[in-house]
Amino acid sequence: MRINRYKRGLKKLKEVDANAGEQVIERLKDIAPDLARYVIEFPFGDVYNRPGLDLKSREIATIAALTTLGNAISQLKVHINGALNVGVSCQEIIEIIIQMAVYAGFPAALNAMYAAKEVFQERDMIKNRKQRIRRSPI
Amino acid sequence: MRINRYKRGLKKLKEVDANAGEQVIERLKDIAPDLARYVIEFPFGDVYNRPGLDLKSREIATIAALTTLGNAISQLKVHINGALNVGVSCQEIIEIIIQMAVYAGFPAALNAMYAAKEVFQERDMIKNRKQRIRRSPI
Amino acid sequence: MRINRYKRGLKKLKEVDANAGEQVIERLKDIAPDLARYVIEFPFGDVYNRPGLDLKSREIATIAALTTLGNAISQLKVHINGALNVGVSCQEIIEIIIQMAVYAGFPAALNAMYAAKEVFQERDMIKNRKQRIRRSPI
Amino acid sequence: MRINRYKRGLKKLKEVDANAGEQVIERLKDIAPDLARYVIEFPFGDVYNRPGLDLKSREIATIAALTTLGNAISQLKVHINGALNVGVSCQEIIEIIIQMAVYAGFPAALNAMYAAKEVFQERDMIKNRKQRIRRSPI
Amino acid sequence: MRINRYKRGLKKLKEVDANAGEQVIERLKDIAPDLARYVIEFPFGDVYNRPGLDLKSREIATIAALTTLGNAISQLKVHINGALNVGVSCQEIIEIIIQMAVYAGFPAALNAMYAAKEVFQERDMIKNRKQRIRRSPI
Amino acid sequence: MRINRYKRGLKKLKEVDANAGEQVIERLKDIAPDLARYVIEFPFGDVYNRPGLDLKSREIATIAALTTLGNAISQLKVHINGALNVGVSCQEIIEIIIQMAVYAGFPAALNAMYAAKEVFQERDMIKNRKQRIRRSPI
Repeated sequence: MRINRYKRGLKKLKEVDANAGEQVIERLKDIAPDLARYVIEFPFGDVYNRPGLDLKSREIATIAALTTLGNAISQLKVHINGALNVGVSCQEIIEIIIQMAVYAGFPAALNAMYAAKEVFQERDMIKNRKQRIRRSPI
Repeated sequence: MRINRYKRGLKKLKEVDANAGEQVIERLKDIAPDLARYVIEFPFGDVYNRPGLDLKSREIATIAALTTLGNAISQLKVHINGALNVGVSCQEIIEIIIQMAVYAGFPAALNAMYAAKEVFQERDMIKNRKQRIRRSPI
Repeated sequence: MRINRYKRGLKKLKEVDANAGEQVIERLKDIAPDLARYVIEFPFGDVYNRPGLDLKSREIATIAALTTLGNAISQLKVHINGALNVGVSCQEIIEIIIQMAVYAGFPAALNAMYAAKEVFQERDMIKNRKQRIRRSPI
Repeated sequence: MRINRYKRGLKKLKEVDANAGEQVIERLKDIAPDLARYVIEFPFGDVYNRPGLDLKSREIATIAALTTLGNAISQLKVHINGALNVGVSCQEIIEIIIQMAVYAGFPAALNAMYAAKEVFQERDMIKNRKQRIRRSPI
Repeated sequence: MRINRYKRGLKKLKEVDANAGEQVIERLKDIAPDLARYVIEFPFGDVYNRPGLDLKSREIATIAALTTLGNAISQLKVHINGALNVGVSCQEIIEIIIQMAVYAGFPAALNAMYAAKEVFQERDMIKNRKQRIRRSPI
Repeated sequence: MRINRYKRGLKKLKEVDANAGEQVIERLKDIAPDLARYVIEFPFGDVYNRPGLDLKSREIATIAALTTLGNAISQLKVHINGALNVGVSCQEIIEIIIQMAVYAGFPAALNAMYAAKEVFQERDMIKNRKQRIRRSPI
C-alpha cells in the first residue's frame, strides 16, 4: 500500500513538474531520503491525488500559499512551473500574485512576481506575450 | 474616478459577501473610515475587479492565503462565506484547507478547518452533506 | 549592576504603561518569574533606555512591529496604551496601522485597528474625537 | 499497510495525549474526517514513530515550533500536555518557552507561557511546585 | 482622479527613494506593470500622502515592519535609503532594528542590521561615523 | 555584574560555536556593537546559561525554532554547527527538521534540510555516514 502512495505520488509530481521531483530526490538522497519520500507520499500521493478539487485549482491555492509564506521562493518557482504545466495561464499566475498584495502585503507580492518573471524567462514566455500583458487604461 | 473605484468595489464586495462589507464599514466608521474605504477601493475596487482570473479562482487563492497566515480567522470566515457565494463548493473549500497542511503545517490547516466548520454550521450546510463527505476507503 | 537594569527597566516600563508591567509580573510570578524579570531588564532596562531614538519613535516602531506580527494582540493593546502615554496621538496610531496594510496585508491592519478601537473606547477617546477623525474628501 | 500507519499513529498519539487524538477525530468527523486521518497517519504514524530521536526530544522540538508560530495556541496546549506525559518536566517546558524569546520575540514567549500556565493549572501542577520555581538570585 | 493618485504617488515615492521607484517600474514593466502602478497608487499615492503622521515617522514604522517580516530584505534596503533621505539618522535606524530583537527575535534584528550595513556602506556612511557609534560603557 | 553576563555569555557562545560568536562581533563592530553585546549577554549570558534544561535540549529547541521561522537560514547553520558541537547527532538534527514539516510545512523543512546538508558537507560528515542514513524499508 505504501508503494502505491509513493508510486501515485511520483506520477502526480511528474504531472506537475517532472524535473522538480527528481531534483528533490537527488538533493536529499545522501542526507534525508525519507524526507524526499514523504514529499512524494503525503503532498503528492495523498493530497494532490484527492478528488474534490481539480489540479489547476490546487496549483492556484499553492501559488497563493507560497507567495504568502514569503520565504519559499524556490518552491514557489517549482509550482509556477507546475501551474503552467497543468493549464494555469501566465496571466492567471500574475493575477494570483497581485491579489496576494492584499493579504500578505506588497513585499510578498513583489518578491513572488520577480520569481514568476524568472520562470517565465526560463520558459521564453515573456517575449511571446508582449501584446498580451493586461494593462488597464489609466 | 475615485468614486468609481469605491462604487465598483462596493458592488464586488457585496457580490462576495454582502454582510461583511457593511460590518467592516460599521466597525471602522468612528475610528478609521478611510481604512474601510481602502478595503473597498483597493482589494475590491481594483484587484477583484480585474479580468484575467475568475472570481471563483480568486476566492480559492484567498482561502489558501488566509489559512497560511494563520492569524486572520475572522477574515477567513468572511471569505469562506464569499467562496460559497461565488460558487466554490463546500468540498472544494475543505480540499484547499487540507492542502494547506503541506505548505503552512497542520496547525494552520486544523484551525482553518474549525473556522470552516463554524461557517458551514451557520449556513446549515453540515447536515445537508452528511452522505457527501469524501471519505477515502481505508 | 543587574539591580540597576531591573530598576531602570521597571521605571521605563511604568513610564510607558504602569499597569502592564505589574500585570506581567503578577501573571508570571508563580510560573516563570524570570521571564517577567527578563521583560523588564532587556526590553525596558536595556533597549528602551538607550539614547539615539526618542520614546515616541520607539512606540511607533513597536506598534508597527506588533501589527505586522498579527498574533500579539494583547501586547499590541499594551503598546497602544503606551504610545498614547508617551505622546503619540490617536490619529498617529491610526495612521501607523493603516500603513501596515501595505506591508503586512489588510487582515493584519484590520485586526490591529479593532484592537486600537478597544483601547480608545476603554480610555473614552472615541467620543472625544468625533469631529477630528481624518476623513479624506471623496 | 495504510491501516498500519493509522494504527501505529493512533497508538503514538495516545502515548502523547490520549484525549487530544479523540477530540481531533470527533471535531473533524462531520466535516473533514480525512484531515483527522492524515493527522494520525503522517505526523504520528510516520514522523513521531521514527527512530533517531527520542519522544521527549520530539516534544521539546514541537513546543519550540508551536511557540515560534505564535498562532497555534490550542495545538501548543496539546503538546505541553504531551510533553509532560512523555517525561518533559514543567521546568524544562518553561525553559524552552523562555528561550523562544530569543528567536521568536517576547510576545510569542509570553503568550506561550500563559498557555503553559493554563495547562499546569488544569493539571494542578502550579501549587505542587511552588518552592521549585527556578528563581535566579538577583 | 486616478492620474492624480499615480502622479502624487510617484512624487512621494521619489521623495522617499528616487531610484527605487524607477527600478520597480522597470523590473515589472514586461510582466505586471499594473502591480508597479498599484505600488505607486496605493502605498505612495494614498497612504504615504496622508496627513496625520509625518514622513519620518512613516519610515520608522516601515523599517520596523520590514525587519519584523524578515523576508523582505530588498524592500528593507529601499526603505533604509528612504529613511535616510527623509531625515531619519543612521543611529535612529540602528536603534529601530535593535529594538526589533525584542518583538521579532534576534535573527530578524541581525539580518536587518546586516542589510543596514550594506546600505550605509553603499552610501559611504560607515567611515564618516566611526567616532559616533553609540557604545555603552561596559 | 554586566561584565559577568558578557563573560559568561561569551564562554557559552564559544561552547556552542566558537567561530560564530567572533563573526557576529566582527560583522557588527562598526555599525552596532551593542547589538553584538546583547546577543552575547541575553541569549548566551542569561538564557543558555540557565539550569533546568541541558544544552543539547536547548539546541534541539533552537533548530526547531529556526526551521519554523524559515527566514533565518544563516542563524540556522550556526546552530546546526552548535548542536553538533554539544552532542546532538547528525541523525537527530535530520529528525528535528523532518518533524518540522508537520508544524511549519514542507517548504520550511526542505530549506532547512538543504542548510543542514551544507553544514554537514563543510564538516565532511556526509561521506562518513553513508551507511548510517536511516532509511525506512519501503
